[in-house]
Amino acid sequence: MIRAARARLEGHARRTPLLSSPFLDEIAGRRVLIKPECLQHTGSFKYRGARSAVSALDPDTRAHGVIAFSSGNHAQGVALAASQFGVPCVIIMPADAPRLKIDNTRALGAEVVLYDRATEDRDALGAALSSERGLTLIKPFDEPQVIAGQGTVGLEIAEDAHALGIESADVLICCGGGGLTSGIALALEAEAPGLRARPVEPEGFDDTARSLRLGRIRRNARLSGSLCDAIITPQPGALTFPIMARLCGPGIVVSEIEAMRAMAQAFQRLKLVAEPGGAVALAAALFHGNEIAGEAVIAIISGGNVDAAIFCDALSLPG
Amino acid sequence: MIRAARARLEGHARRTPLLSSPFLDEIAGRRVLIKPECLQHTGSFKYRGARSAVSALDPDTRAHGVIAFSSGNHAQGVALAASQFGVPCVIIMPADAPRLKIDNTRALGAEVVLYDRATEDRDALGAALSSERGLTLIKPFDEPQVIAGQGTVGLEIAEDAHALGIESADVLICCGGGGLTSGIALALEAEAPGLRARPVEPEGFDDTARSLRLGRIRRNARLSGSLCDAIITPQPGALTFPIMARLCGPGIVVSEIEAMRAMAQAFQRLKLVAEPGGAVALAAALFHGNEIAGEAVIAIISGGNVDAAIFCDALSLPG
Repeated sequence: MIRAARARLEGHARRTPLLSSPFLDEIAGRRVLIKPECLQHTGSFKYRGARSAVSALDPDTRAHGVIAFSSGNHAQGVALAASQFGVPCVIIMPADAPRLKIDNTRALGAEVVLYDRATEDRDALGAALSSERGLTLIKPFDEPQVIAGQGTVGLEIAEDAHALGIESADVLICCGGGGLTSGIALALEAEAPGLRARPVEPEGFDDTARSLRLGRIRRNARLSGSLCDAIITPQPGALTFPIMARLCGPGIVVSEIEAMRAMAQAFQRLKLVAEPGGAVALAAALFHGNEIAGEAVIAIISGGNVDAAIFCDALSLPG
Repeated sequence: MIRAARARLEGHARRTPLLSSPFLDEIAGRRVLIKPECLQHTGSFKYRGARSAVSALDPDTRAHGVIAFSSGNHAQGVALAASQFGVPCVIIMPADAPRLKIDNTRALGAEVVLYDRATEDRDALGAALSSERGLTLIKPFDEPQVIAGQGTVGLEIAEDAHALGIESADVLICCGGGGLTSGIALALEAEAPGLRARPVEPEGFDDTARSLRLGRIRRNARLSGSLCDAIITPQPGALTFPIMARLCGPGIVVSEIEAMRAMAQAFQRLKLVAEPGGAVALAAALFHGNEIAGEAVIAIISGGNVDAAIFCDALSLPG
């Protein structure tokens, strides 16, 4: 399925490179290779899964349109994918979502439907719209074709690591619901079995690390209040967790300050814009070296959709 | 020479992609394709020319080492190229150069020799060091192998534009001494004659635009005081100017504010860090559309070595 997704993404998703800097190698004490999915269309890897899922629909179903619940990167990915197929797209967002995210999603051609978190039931609203208009729900991670699309990141890593002679390394992955992590883990199992997927999460939202340690799904106590909002989910997915439990190494947990410091390093050494949640894997590579095995490490920057104010806060931290 | 430089850079210089965003297309009123040389090693295209020149030296000459005068991107490019060949590298910088640039150049393995702008003669100092140690001077732009190295950017643009079906477009190039501009112009002449190189400069430092208009080399009145310091030179080069005069379209001049606004767009829409001088071509694409011909335009972001304070100033400008 991942290979088939890659064929459907060909010519649409950007094939991102592996970047590096001797300055980052020095901080980490090993070779660090960065996969910059912030350079993907819409500024995050989410476009891959969205395009994979929308392109996998049968054309008659797709023609009725798609719907997604998201105020973030998934919304923009689904909106762009739907617009490329010329089909309707409804994105359901809380009315208090940032204006910029609402505007960006609309600008990508989606109809944004706002709901009041306090008084309205999001799922009921979505179900009503879906049945009325025949829209297909595109889930953010617990959906096979979304996982397959995210897995294309793993195929590219396998190829590029092989070309660099790296046959054994940890691959650090910013982890929310686990779509990206499980997709990459499956791709590496098939194409680069010496590379091991490892989820990375922010402190206080380490549901995947705890779930992997205990062998069963655990929830986060809180669901908001993190700068790393792009990768905060209640718990690992029903589809993604068994894959991660079978294939992934232990999770790594980083602090928000470490994520911000990683953003500053990405700015200074790679000329890349990372969002806080998108920088946690690089933070683990740079600042948690004692939890990592091997002479090289591969870290994914999963997205770059961050407000200027937060970005500049990160740049102002002492080195 | 450009094709030979490309062969020498193979596996060393990054092959940068062409990026795009529907939001930038909308601002520009046409399709905008961005060549992000800020993602090149050392954060600017300068590594290409430096590596080309150092790799073209005969091995016995190279073994004695190289020397360059630079406080900026050229210094870092030469330092990295020399360190990759394991040969000595001396970089002569003014003693009042920013500490970060001195440190970065040293970290790349170069010996940094500082001089006092008020009391010391830079050229005499360099000549003494060169003859004493047998160092070869790597000039920043007026040197055939440097021009050839920068020209590899043009070969990549020609290939990618062709793959996208773009046979006719202006290629906007951040222009200082003209090494990048003349190298790209030569590559396009050979490989994509429908693409036209056009230098872009900041207001007050438009020596190339004026020189092209008058058909002879003109100097800038001032040599400092621009945020776009990375691309400020006294005048076009003796080698680069005749090439530009034969092959380039008219120069475009942008304001510093336009360059800063382009930096903010690169942050928001491309997730890239551009330095002010590196953003002038994107600024021309976005804000000088009436000076550009065709349905598509290609703009180079030439570098991303910018201090956090200046970067955040750019992000704080009103949209």
